Amino acid sequence: MTSPDHATHAPVTAGVLGGTGYTGQELLRLLSAQPGVTVRFATSRSQSGERSPVPGLHFVRPDEAPVDDVDFLFLCLPHGEAAAWTEGYRGSARIIDLTADHRPGSGKEEGWVYGLAERNHEGIAGAARVANPGCYPTGVLLSLLPLHAMGMVDESRLTVVDAASGVTGAGRTPRTDLLFAEVTGNFRAYGAGNEHRHLREIRSLLPERSILFQPHLLPVPRGILETITVPVRDGVTSAEVRLAWRGAYSRSDVVRVLGDDALPDLAGVVGTDRLDLGVCNVARVSPPVVTVVAAFDNLGKGAAGQALQNMNLMAGRPIDEGLRC
Amino acid sequence: MTSPDHATHAPVTAGVLGGTGYTGQELLRLLSAQPGVTVRFATSRSQSGERSPVPGLHFVRPDEAPVDDVDFLFLCLPHGEAAAWTEGYRGSARIIDLTADHRPGSGKEEGWVYGLAERNHEGIAGAARVANPGCYPTGVLLSLLPLHAMGMVDESRLTVVDAASGVTGAGRTPRTDLLFAEVTGNFRAYGAGNEHRHLREIRSLLPERSILFQPHLLPVPRGILETITVPVRDGVTSAEVRLAWRGAYSRSDVVRVLGDDALPDLAGVVGTDRLDLGVCNVARVSPPVVTVVAAFDNLGKGAAGQALQNMNLMAGRPIDEGLRC
Amino acid sequence: MTSPDHATHAPVTAGVLGGTGYTGQELLRLLSAQPGVTVRFATSRSQSGERSPVPGLHFVRPDEAPVDDVDFLFLCLPHGEAAAWTEGYRGSARIIDLTADHRPGSGKEEGWVYGLAERNHEGIAGAARVANPGCYPTGVLLSLLPLHAMGMVDESRLTVVDAASGVTGAGRTPRTDLLFAEVTGNFRAYGAGNEHRHLREIRSLLPERSILFQPHLLPVPRGILETITVPVRDGVTSAEVRLAWRGAYSRSDVVRVLGDDALPDLAGVVGTDRLDLGVCNVARVSPPVVTVVAAFDNLGKGAAGQALQNMNLMAGRPIDEGLRC
Amino acid sequence: MTSPDHATHAPVTAGVLGGTGYTGQELLRLLSAQPGVTVRFATSRSQSGERSPVPGLHFVRPDEAPVDDVDFLFLCLPHGEAAAWTEGYRGSARIIDLTADHRPGSGKEEGWVYGLAERNHEGIAGAARVANPGCYPTGVLLSLLPLHAMGMVDESRLTVVDAASGVTGAGRTPRTDLLFAEVTGNFRAYGAGNEHRHLREIRSLLPERSILFQPHLLPVPRGILETITVPVRDGVTSAEVRLAWRGAYSRSDVVRVLGDDALPDLAGVVGTDRLDLGVCNVARVSPPVVTVVAAFDNLGKGAAGQALQNMNLMAGRPIDEGLRC
Repeated sequence: MTSPDHATHAPVTAGVLGGTGYTGQELLRLLSAQPGVTVRFATSRSQSGERSPVPGLHFVRPDEAPVDDVDFLFLCLPHGEAAAWTEGYRGSARIIDLTADHRPGSGKEEGWVYGLAERNHEGIAGAARVANPGCYPTGVLLSLLPLHAMGMVDESRLTVVDAASGVTGAGRTPRTDLLFAEVTGNFRAYGAGNEHRHLREIRSLLPERSILFQPHLLPVPRGILETITVPVRDGVTSAEVRLAWRGAYSRSDVVRVLGDDALPDLAGVVGTDRLDLGVCNVARVSPPVVTVVAAFDNLGKGAAGQALQNMNLMAGRPIDEGLRC
Repeated sequence: MTSPDHATHAPVTAGVLGGTGYTGQELLRLLSAQPGVTVRFATSRSQSGERSPVPGLHFVRPDEAPVDDVDFLFLCLPHGEAAAWTEGYRGSARIIDLTADHRPGSGKEEGWVYGLAERNHEGIAGAARVANPGCYPTGVLLSLLPLHAMGMVDESRLTVVDAASGVTGAGRTPRTDLLFAEVTGNFRAYGAGNEHRHLREIRSLLPERSILFQPHLLPVPRGILETITVPVRDGVTSAEVRLAWRGAYSRSDVVRVLGDDALPDLAGVVGTDRLDLGVCNVARVSPPVVTVVAAFDNLGKGAAGQALQNMNLMAGRPIDEGLRC
Repeated sequence: MTSPDHATHAPVTAGVLGGTGYTGQELLRLLSAQPGVTVRFATSRSQSGERSPVPGLHFVRPDEAPVDDVDFLFLCLPHGEAAAWTEGYRGSARIIDLTADHRPGSGKEEGWVYGLAERNHEGIAGAARVANPGCYPTGVLLSLLPLHAMGMVDESRLTVVDAASGVTGAGRTPRTDLLFAEVTGNFRAYGAGNEHRHLREIRSLLPERSILFQPHLLPVPRGILETITVPVRDGVTSAEVRLAWRGAYSRSDVVRVLGDDALPDLAGVVGTDRLDLGVCNVARVSPPVVTVVAAFDNLGKGAAGQALQNMNLMAGRPIDEGLRC
Repeated sequence: MTSPDHATHAPVTAGVLGGTGYTGQELLRLLSAQPGVTVRFATSRSQSGERSPVPGLHFVRPDEAPVDDVDFLFLCLPHGEAAAWTEGYRGSARIIDLTADHRPGSGKEEGWVYGLAERNHEGIAGAARVANPGCYPTGVLLSLLPLHAMGMVDESRLTVVDAASGVTGAGRTPRTDLLFAEVTGNFRAYGAGNEHRHLREIRSLLPERSILFQPHLLPVPRGILETITVPVRDGVTSAEVRLAWRGAYSRSDVVRVLGDDALPDLAGVVGTDRLDLGVCNVARVSPPVVTVVAAFDNLGKGAAGQALQNMNLMAGRPIDEGLRC
């Protein structure tokens, strides 16, 4: 989990605003396992005074947190609160926002760099404020961006994204429809009709492309699997798709490209910060399509893992330092 | 569960070959709850002498079963064995085959009527041998056939079927990949590349249509949810799709059409013999598509429930008699 | 599910106060399947106007319900509200209270008959107000009462009840600790130290007996399994325990006694109104104990099924009429 | 996960016989994360040539493994095969056997040291052959041994162990009763009547004590929770039990004693090598008992984690080096 030369990096300090949701907890666990990283505080309105996932660290109230006294601030607040908070912030900490507030398409992305780590090393490295991508868009964009860049996609036809997520993607606020007895044994579509809020983020990065994004809720705690039907130009094969991905992701261990038309599953990625990509050719369909599957942990590469990558880039550390690959 | 006038039907007798798999068990439970139906025997090679789900009935070895002495024979054998068995059968019982052996596209469908109950009342009623449809095709065909018949589908474009099934769809023979510890928390695609054997059945009923069928394995015991992206002709709306379905299924309580762009889920259908259909319009996509979702229990409408419908039709009973709707 | 002679019973009318919790929903499904029973209303504060589980019946607000105009009123309110409501009720409907408010040990049991159906046929039959037993006590009492009555238990030693329940036993009000992501993969003890509120109910029926009751929360939606270590007098065997049970429960199909030291499991009882009992001898322990296991559905025999038994007795119908045995 | 001074230990080499079961896989993952430990080989009859969980290492056939060329051999074979294999082994590697073959009570324990790491540091450190304890006995013995040693237990009365385990405890060989559809939603007792094979191991360490051990199968992949009713001498309280445990386990981070009568759950330990202990006083019972709960991961402290502790002790490394605490 650690590289042999970690002692050579400059130490960094971090604080987490909103440490009791699923994302905040995962981030705290991940940060606390990093040599050279000190978590100074984690906030909680409801659990201040109680133990955080960082050994020896107790949650503090938001107003008690020394927010000016850390190198990095991670925002794991409810969606909507991060924008309000940062507007009032005058300190010099660099901010990584894990909420949806400053992502492309939010209307508030000005002054924020989009933190899709594998696609924007240099921009992120120099940024003061980074918007951590949404979980679903992370998989869609890492799957599709290299294929569009290589001209492999027939953009006159529709790309269909059928996505499924574990329940931690819906947060930890109690809701009847997220109770165990409602979710177990069930499977359902939601955000139907191309109306999910993540779509605007995807479309900001893939403007003028025709995309249908249909999410579903899985009876599992963690993990996202996205099955994408990609219309490809005549003659494009799964082998060429893999080549395009390998070219795009050669500098990172986080994105793993499976060989031989194998497709990834959730079991292979849950609990890691990896994103696995697979593709296979499709028979009996003309004009041609390929089936792409992306699998990753919504709390790993879909949230906390990617936030750590962004911190690594901003701090001049290797991008994959400390990631569970 | 029973209609008030059941006493007026002529009694029928039935036998089940292969009663210990998930399909056989479900069928035995369903048959044993029917007034006017007597289950004479259920066979099992491994559990002969043990209790069957029918109160008072013990499993017998296949060679002990009085296969000439019932009105209806249900075949719940492993795929492949039903064809061999029926070739040697010289009795006069009418046969309902729940295996894949005699379905359209199998190459052995001659002499067999396809038992998609809502679509072929008259053919089934007079048949001596009926091939019960596959679980996945049941949902795809009941969703799409009325839309093609009404000319609503743009057949120049691809229909994408993303399907997900609970594990009983894979049978009860022990396999490492179906162990609890392998399935729980996981979700995965299989039969990728348009290579699933159910596709030939779908294509036999929808020849020359362009269809991609991609199944997934869900960590639930029962239920199938199919999310279908249907390319529609300009101006076709979800309301018209519902009208087409309602016209096609007015004579049955088994197919239920949800209103107001609502989409069905597994929780609403598991343990029943119903198939729920929903459809919604899709924004920001041109040329237009609609999203169709079909939900049903793979052991209900996907197997035993449909077999009972077929028996009802063949015996001159109301098609939905005794179904869990 | 129905006996052949149901047409001979006088029809009854029923109303349900609190129809949207897990118990209320199950009761409505069960009542609506009964020939001869008409559900006049079901109340809900949050979902008035929406469909209830009874076909054709919509929820009404509590103040709209014709509570004087039914034969039987079922109370499925939150614990505490049933007592307040019945104090103000002046109508003549007979009441079956599924909450904890009027159970033995509650301090408010005066004027209420305890509805442990198998143990008090006559008392229940003539009662105006019946307190439906708690789910856990139902299993403990049906296991132990006949053994104490026969003098089989060594009352100088401790009886240890290790119980485990599915999450619907905790109700449907949203709580963080009942979210899917918190419950799946987990198992935990609660109500430790002999402090669970159900204990007072058990102790009221088994006064001066030494009992330890330790419940646990299972990652399943429904079902209770109670493993009871019963100290028995010298020479008492599992066979004699079965005889005692069979003698006590000969008039009911609800309680099923397994043979041959077999022990029941949840899978055999979930979705039914049955309670399965098993017992086995224990080696290498002196003085002797036997292991008793009771399994049942907390929403079936543990709630709605037992309530229906009570209504049957009060209405002069066969006790097991319409139960899922 | 690593201590700062790991570079100072002498490097060790290891081989694993039987690397594809749940225990073997977990051990390989754990060993491969250890600085200073090199896994030379992992064997598999069915998957030789395929990738192992150790990056860069492929499974080899048992006859290809360089079993004389490592410092430590871990046996993760099916129960029964380890004894046969070690009888024929003439090499000098030190052996840690994770099977049941050489545990106390097996009849073949001569020449083997029992590897209950917290209880036998010195004996294990000097041993050539170590029998890794069974999963269930690990929790029972770590709970009870200090209490017996301190004279806290009233040995004239029965100690009742109600235990529940996730399904990986039953191994990875396909069996119908371990299929997902059979386990999900279910809960059942097994090994009833004090007949479980782990009991002989427990009784070897606690001779002449009266113990009832009743295991259950949980619908979870990993984790064991043991709820133990301990008869204590008059005046013994939960606080004293905690003191006894803290005295016994002061040198290890693996055993964690919860305070304030709190009881541990599976969620807190799954995926770790820790064992959490909690205890609470019991009201309304005389003579007195306390309720003890032990929670741990059957693949962690119950198997691979403990095996690593044993290797650490044998290699002169700190006992908790590399453990997930």
